[in-house]
Amino acid sequence: MTFGINDLPVRDELRGKSPYGAPQLDVPVRLNTNENPYPLPEPLVERIAERVREAARGLNRYPDRDAVELRTKLAEYLTKTAGYRVGLENVWAANGSNEVIQQLLQTFGGPGRSAIGFEPSYSMHALIARGTGTGWISGPRNDDFTIDLAAAERAIAESRPDVVFVTSPNNPTGNAVPPETVLALYDAAQTVKPSMVVVDEAYIEFSHGRSLLPLIEGRPNLVVSRTMSKAFGAAGLRLGYLAAHPAVVDAVQLVRLPYHLSAVTQATALAALEHTGTLLKYVEQLKSERDRLVTELRALGYDVTESDANFVQFGRFADAHEAWRKILDRGVLVRDNGVPGWLRVSAGTPQENDAFLDAARELKKEQST
Amino acid sequence: MTFGINDLPVRDELRGKSPYGAPQLDVPVRLNTNENPYPLPEPLVERIAERVREAARGLNRYPDRDAVELRTKLAEYLTKTAGYRVGLENVWAANGSNEVIQQLLQTFGGPGRSAIGFEPSYSMHALIARGTGTGWISGPRNDDFTIDLAAAERAIAESRPDVVFVTSPNNPTGNAVPPETVLALYDAAQTVKPSMVVVDEAYIEFSHGRSLLPLIEGRPNLVVSRTMSKAFGAAGLRLGYLAAHPAVVDAVQLVRLPYHLSAVTQATALAALEHTGTLLKYVEQLKSERDRLVTELRALGYDVTESDANFVQFGRFADAHEAWRKILDRGVLVRDNGVPGWLRVSAGTPQENDAFLDAARELKKEQST
Repeated sequence: MTFGINDLPVRDELRGKSPYGAPQLDVPVRLNTNENPYPLPEPLVERIAERVREAARGLNRYPDRDAVELRTKLAEYLTKTAGYRVGLENVWAANGSNEVIQQLLQTFGGPGRSAIGFEPSYSMHALIARGTGTGWISGPRNDDFTIDLAAAERAIAESRPDVVFVTSPNNPTGNAVPPETVLALYDAAQTVKPSMVVVDEAYIEFSHGRSLLPLIEGRPNLVVSRTMSKAFGAAGLRLGYLAAHPAVVDAVQLVRLPYHLSAVTQATALAALEHTGTLLKYVEQLKSERDRLVTELRALGYDVTESDANFVQFGRFADAHEAWRKILDRGVLVRDNGVPGWLRVSAGTPQENDAFLDAARELKKEQST
Repeated sequence: MTFGINDLPVRDELRGKSPYGAPQLDVPVRLNTNENPYPLPEPLVERIAERVREAARGLNRYPDRDAVELRTKLAEYLTKTAGYRVGLENVWAANGSNEVIQQLLQTFGGPGRSAIGFEPSYSMHALIARGTGTGWISGPRNDDFTIDLAAAERAIAESRPDVVFVTSPNNPTGNAVPPETVLALYDAAQTVKPSMVVVDEAYIEFSHGRSLLPLIEGRPNLVVSRTMSKAFGAAGLRLGYLAAHPAVVDAVQLVRLPYHLSAVTQATALAALEHTGTLLKYVEQLKSERDRLVTELRALGYDVTESDANFVQFGRFADAHEAWRKILDRGVLVRDNGVPGWLRVSAGTPQENDAFLDAARELKKEQST
């Protein structure tokens, strides 16, 4: 027997666990991780090289620990696109929204505390809770994947979580959460004791509706988290950020690792923010492709959940994993998120989406014969 | 009263705390954070721009989650410089050695567990313990800042820590830990129950002696952590790594945030590793400047701790903070790490070191008049 993980003095709750991550398979059409299918435009690639060259000349020095220029530019982007004025003092950035969430749970969750999410939702919320010693409560949803407000309020009243996650648009289901629901959940989360509400807006730029950012006004326990991975086409950059009351930005600095955000990450993100206009045009293309996927999948006879994201949840399958496998056999990799009866497909380029729709059509034919 | 951190539902142990970090002051000579004073050579800057340009073309995709190419090259570097063969399977990388240590504590420490360090030492070990809910035990040192082995063994036997930190060369004192001491501590840490021993070798390239890496042979609970911040002159890059038994590398992947290491970080680090030869020549210059600082400070009548790092601890002062202030008044920023009677100065360029030595000379004159 080889010496392995379980022969080490690892924490008990890690024994027998596997690392998180989508299978990385080599197939022609990969629509499984909600990546933006459009490579960055060449002028932006050049601008990144230019800004990184500049940053590399000072790489022997620690980076700006407070990422002041980057946070200022992120605040300008939010102000412009979400219709609510935020400044440097409202914004914090980290290595991907996963690290943002980890810092929030280290600050407001942790041992002896708990967090709730309404599942199925972004599974990293529960995993980062585990990683930070935060108890996890799985809250309910309706059959159509909307949040069952009465049940959610009951769950909050009973379990008294310290952190409430609301993912909007929700991943992997795609539907957005109405502002009234978030407001009601926020109020519920303040009733027993003050609790933080984290609205994860990783996919908000693809929504038919508006960002919930303006709700932070007068609500210091509300945090909106964002990412440059999807709308900015920069999953490889690992740049997540949050907007909230300045006190929240001060508080996460008590747990952030010093100099957590490298000079090259800051330089690359700043370059991408200079090209926001172009990148948001790709977002418009993806939104119309996403709408086409919804329409065509319905025309093929699939059930499709309303989508405000750059992906679509479709079903229902007696055996979702078997359906996943059959689509993969046709060269298209979609995602089986473990939601019984449903699969998730990312909106790709028109050609990729055509390939997926062909596979979905054949699968449907096969099922009905 | 403004709404602040303490008005939020933050964890109790964070109340009243301040973020970690050296003061960032605008002075002519900054010798306070052990940065490498030499900017990267221009051919390397160009190579970074080139590799990042290439990475930026695929930035819409997630980075290699397992950083295979980078870990392979880090393993080659270790094999070449530490005289012990390691491969990809022995190496793990993260955003700075702080994140490496955080992942180790999430895996082997955490709530209900504890870690010990022999203080004064790198203060982030204790802070990351707090951030991960790991209990912290402050172990003893001798007056000359070497590890008091008998006392250390007693502390381990009594407190039964799950993780033992050994920093060699030690920060902020500068002295290296002999291999016999590490071996004895490792054995002590296995006596009651198996515990992990983490040897933090952030400054090892500046040592008169050898890396302790070969000690991982046959010792699966021993981890050596490293960084590219100092010897590679890349503090701005935030690239830390570890070498250990492959089971350790598998285990930290249970807690690492997926895709934690960005494509631009991986590309930049790979470029720097191509220029190892040149960068290690700067290390030789810094070693000789470090030795000069030791010699000249002693000639001026200061007490100086033996240094195997790129910095020197000097004293003794009745009031170290006042001495720090007086050196700062002369335009030189050194570090007051809170070790009573002692200050720390990073080895800079010859000109920077001259400026520091002038200030130290004047301070000595002033004290003796």
